Amino acid sequence: MTANPNRKTPVTLLGLGAMGTALARAWLAAGHPLTVWNRTPARAEALAAEGAKVADSAAGAVAASTLVVVCLLDDASVETALDGVGLTGKDLVNLTTTTPAQARARATWAEERGARYLDGGIMAVPPMVGIPEAGGYVFYSGSRELFELHRESLAVPVGTAYVGEDAGFAALHDVALLSAMYGMFAGAAHAFALIRREDIDPVVFAPLLGNWIKAMAGSSIEQTARQLRNGDYTTDVVSDLAMQVAGTPTFLSTAEEQGVSPELIAPYFALMRRRLDVGSGKEDLTGLVDLLVRKD
Amino acid sequence: MTANPNRKTPVTLLGLGAMGTALARAWLAAGHPLTVWNRTPARAEALAAEGAKVADSAAGAVAASTLVVVCLLDDASVETALDGVGLTGKDLVNLTTTTPAQARARATWAEERGARYLDGGIMAVPPMVGIPEAGGYVFYSGSRELFELHRESLAVPVGTAYVGEDAGFAALHDVALLSAMYGMFAGAAHAFALIRREDIDPVVFAPLLGNWIKAMAGSSIEQTARQLRNGDYTTDVVSDLAMQVAGTPTFLSTAEEQGVSPELIAPYFALMRRRLDVGSGKEDLTGLVDLLVRKD
Repeated sequence: MTANPNRKTPVTLLGLGAMGTALARAWLAAGHPLTVWNRTPARAEALAAEGAKVADSAAGAVAASTLVVVCLLDDASVETALDGVGLTGKDLVNLTTTTPAQARARATWAEERGARYLDGGIMAVPPMVGIPEAGGYVFYSGSRELFELHRESLAVPVGTAYVGEDAGFAALHDVALLSAMYGMFAGAAHAFALIRREDIDPVVFAPLLGNWIKAMAGSSIEQTARQLRNGDYTTDVVSDLAMQVAGTPTFLSTAEEQGVSPELIAPYFALMRRRLDVGSGKEDLTGLVDLLVRKD
Repeated sequence: MTANPNRKTPVTLLGLGAMGTALARAWLAAGHPLTVWNRTPARAEALAAEGAKVADSAAGAVAASTLVVVCLLDDASVETALDGVGLTGKDLVNLTTTTPAQARARATWAEERGARYLDGGIMAVPPMVGIPEAGGYVFYSGSRELFELHRESLAVPVGTAYVGEDAGFAALHDVALLSAMYGMFAGAAHAFALIRREDIDPVVFAPLLGNWIKAMAGSSIEQTARQLRNGDYTTDVVSDLAMQVAGTPTFLSTAEEQGVSPELIAPYFALMRRRLDVGSGKEDLTGLVDLLVRKD
């Protein structure tokens, strides 16, 4: 490719679900020549009207550009779509949600077919795509050379964060953050359940809950990270593990009083108790992380 | 009391644990005459040197001021400390952590003894007391008259948030927010466990995790609240319940790959599945709240 700054990198995109369609629109809006393919062609029609070239087959779409972005339902869909398609010399960027092991295997598979491989994990929902202020971004891992080469094009729809040569790291970061989000959702669901039958307006309650979660997230997560790195879990603040375990009956009794199942919070309290049984009451809650990880 | 603006309201404080001691120091620093009592007198000595009057008994401490603040270990400690102590005409503010039902019963108990009653739930740890920028505050509920009368004095150590005449509401808000925090902690612990055996620096990972949780907390919690109020759980964004349930195998498989127990995230996924079985796949996750609440 010649170094003409006005010539935007052509992009091929496989997969036009809600996320793929949002990505496509962002690249089109930024003037990138775009070739799209979708298993069911109807989804491509609107994009054709907006300037996308619609390929008849995945092979045809892949042939159209060096940079090939894949955003399909799951790893099996990637296998099916690219089965028998020539990938030699292609720069394959796989934004399909997978496990880390699937991403690593897909990287090997791509390299065996002569392609460079970058895996991505999208930390955004489709309405955030193309809106930088929305703060969405994609974790990338795998070929650093490929990431650097296409960084500008990849940054068009959403921000980028490169997290390592290991092709599985993008998926691992993605799954880790989303799993943590579900934990936060679980805590919030329990909180809303506790007030559900009371004369408390959930809309008035929500900012109290949200601000508290935001205030607690920053410092506690950074403290846990420092302790995991340095191996010293002793807390310098007052609410140590022993005190927190002593407080759990009040939480469980309140759930019982309010007619709320403790199923979403009891497992964490049980883990706190197990850590207290094997560790020190003067610790922070960091030791719970180690209890979750299988020893082998 | 005459309306002399330079005369600070005298305060009696029962209980000098870490939190009580921090409260005491804040009132002393602001010039409030302070009388303290603690079951084990040693903790009062340092405060005596800083200007507090130390009472020999809870009864003596209560007799010293109209405004009596109680910050003891639990509801049983309150019962024991105030057993037989004259409370007629007292303004009792109970910051002891209890369940909502215990707070309501304590309010009735206090009113039967001729005292006005205000219950408090402290949303702060001791190092945050006396430092307005730290953002700590206390939920208050019960006598609104009492809250308004002593609002200024109560706001000296930490901010105030009055949440209703129901004496149990402060404890309910307190427990709800702390329960939600433990859910968030559980999610973060799972995330840290997923990267524990990889070459990923937890201190580099932490801000990614913390910022993501903070970004997700605000909008999702407010959305849930609106839906609970209006009863329409249908989502207008793309990741509906059906899609999210379809994504859970990736989260569980990743935990398995990384050797991490799913015990902290599986219960929420199971609840998502139960909601999908009885509700609509086009819903948001709000319906999970209702599944937690006992029908009767």
